[in-house]
Amino acid sequence: MSRILFTCAYDGAPWQGWQSQPGGRTVQDVLEKALEAAVHAPCRIHAAGRTDAGVHARGQRFHADPPGTCRIPLNRWPGALNARLPSSIRVLEARSVPDGFHARFSATGKTYRYRMERTPLLSPFLAGRAWHLPGELDEAGMGRALALFCGMHDFRAFAARRGNEPAPVPEGFFIRSLDRVSLEREGGSLYVTLHGTGFLYKMVRLIVGALYHIGRGRLDERGLHRLLRAPSGEKSPYCAPACGLYLESVEYPEFPPVNPGVPRMSG
Amino acid sequence: MSRILFTCAYDGAPWQGWQSQPGGRTVQDVLEKALEAAVHAPCRIHAAGRTDAGVHARGQRFHADPPGTCRIPLNRWPGALNARLPSSIRVLEARSVPDGFHARFSATGKTYRYRMERTPLLSPFLAGRAWHLPGELDEAGMGRALALFCGMHDFRAFAARRGNEPAPVPEGFFIRSLDRVSLEREGGSLYVTLHGTGFLYKMVRLIVGALYHIGRGRLDERGLHRLLRAPSGEKSPYCAPACGLYLESVEYPEFPPVNPGVPRMSG
Repeated sequence: MSRILFTCAYDGAPWQGWQSQPGGRTVQDVLEKALEAAVHAPCRIHAAGRTDAGVHARGQRFHADPPGTCRIPLNRWPGALNARLPSSIRVLEARSVPDGFHARFSATGKTYRYRMERTPLLSPFLAGRAWHLPGELDEAGMGRALALFCGMHDFRAFAARRGNEPAPVPEGFFIRSLDRVSLEREGGSLYVTLHGTGFLYKMVRLIVGALYHIGRGRLDERGLHRLLRAPSGEKSPYCAPACGLYLESVEYPEFPPVNPGVPRMSG
Repeated sequence: MSRILFTCAYDGAPWQGWQSQPGGRTVQDVLEKALEAAVHAPCRIHAAGRTDAGVHARGQRFHADPPGTCRIPLNRWPGALNARLPSSIRVLEARSVPDGFHARFSATGKTYRYRMERTPLLSPFLAGRAWHLPGELDEAGMGRALALFCGMHDFRAFAARRGNEPAPVPEGFFIRSLDRVSLEREGGSLYVTLHGTGFLYKMVRLIVGALYHIGRGRLDERGLHRLLRAPSGEKSPYCAPACGLYLESVEYPEFPPVNPGVPRMSG
């Protein structure tokens, strides 16, 4: 048994983000504990995207190298781990990958979706799962502004410091490319969907925050142009809350997208 | 200011049911605390349906008599209470009712909905909000069996003891009437909807439990007939879990159903 790539989904509300922390209340910690119980040995995992506290995932990916003595067949992995996981975290799939494969560095595309709720009241069933924005919003203007993000840009105004960046920052570090963007209304919900080859830290939430300012008339397209086309040291001023963000899927050239064919779950 | 009828919704997962308990972790306790903070005086509330721990509501109703000194206008009540409530409980509406009105005893109809999830995996976003039934189920047979419940019956086989029943039980106590029943598939979800004039304790969950046994081939229509048409002391053997149950709405002859017109929330 060599390297395995897993797909998982989680409700981020009860967790302190992906990345392992001393307290142990993170998705990585809980998954590593389940994995250790399944293979009877410690086993580190490596995610495609290290989501922040409160951020959700429908198609997160991570890889691990279970010990050679482990004889769990691929199709039994989801059941073996789910039996040891809380119901807010589910492993959907496991597949064998070459030893050089890396869940993060081998990824060639990611899709994030951000959910805003426009109804006067936020349903108790959406608490912690959407950004509640019941007030006036120029949604058409937000849609036009979103289109400006499409393509390759220097996104340094839409990046927060994680603290572990290379220093000095290499040439082109902030250059990223979004090849599909959309703003869609479904009932009382407003979704921003972004597909790109790579994302900077908090990039999606900073983009959604800027769109919100556009929608409220506090930022215009000229201001957005300035942030996006002629980046200085200026930062986009508003980061949308974590609760609305979902990591939808991670793509690799070798594999079809998450959950092809019949959906394994709804909701 | 005299009697007020409130409509509310809640995610039942974090709460120990509706009815006040010493620990205080119930929906009633939390609502009474918010009400007391709003009117600066203790204020008891009375629900239409005292839902069990883990049971959800989209259209629960309760009434209260705020003190005469209280000057909150009707349309400000939801905001005044929601500001003091956790996001898993929302007050949707307040309306003035006559002093003799009672949220429970004046009700003339209730709708309950029960959600089953048929996908191989239960989405982390549906944990605690549906009964996960990924295995074989004869859904057509369940639909035929459900139709048998329609109309007026002696439902004593589908009633649990709450412990506060009148003793001796009055003639006709177990006679209830369901005038609309349905079993519907929506994607991976299977819904049982029941509308009736009154429900016995755990009646919906005992009916759904019996349908599940039909679906698994452990109970047939003859057995169901026996429980329903010729009730002896025999009890239906299976109670479906609380997490799938939703109190959808409560009706009164004087009022239109909950949230007429534009929905105030989705999800």
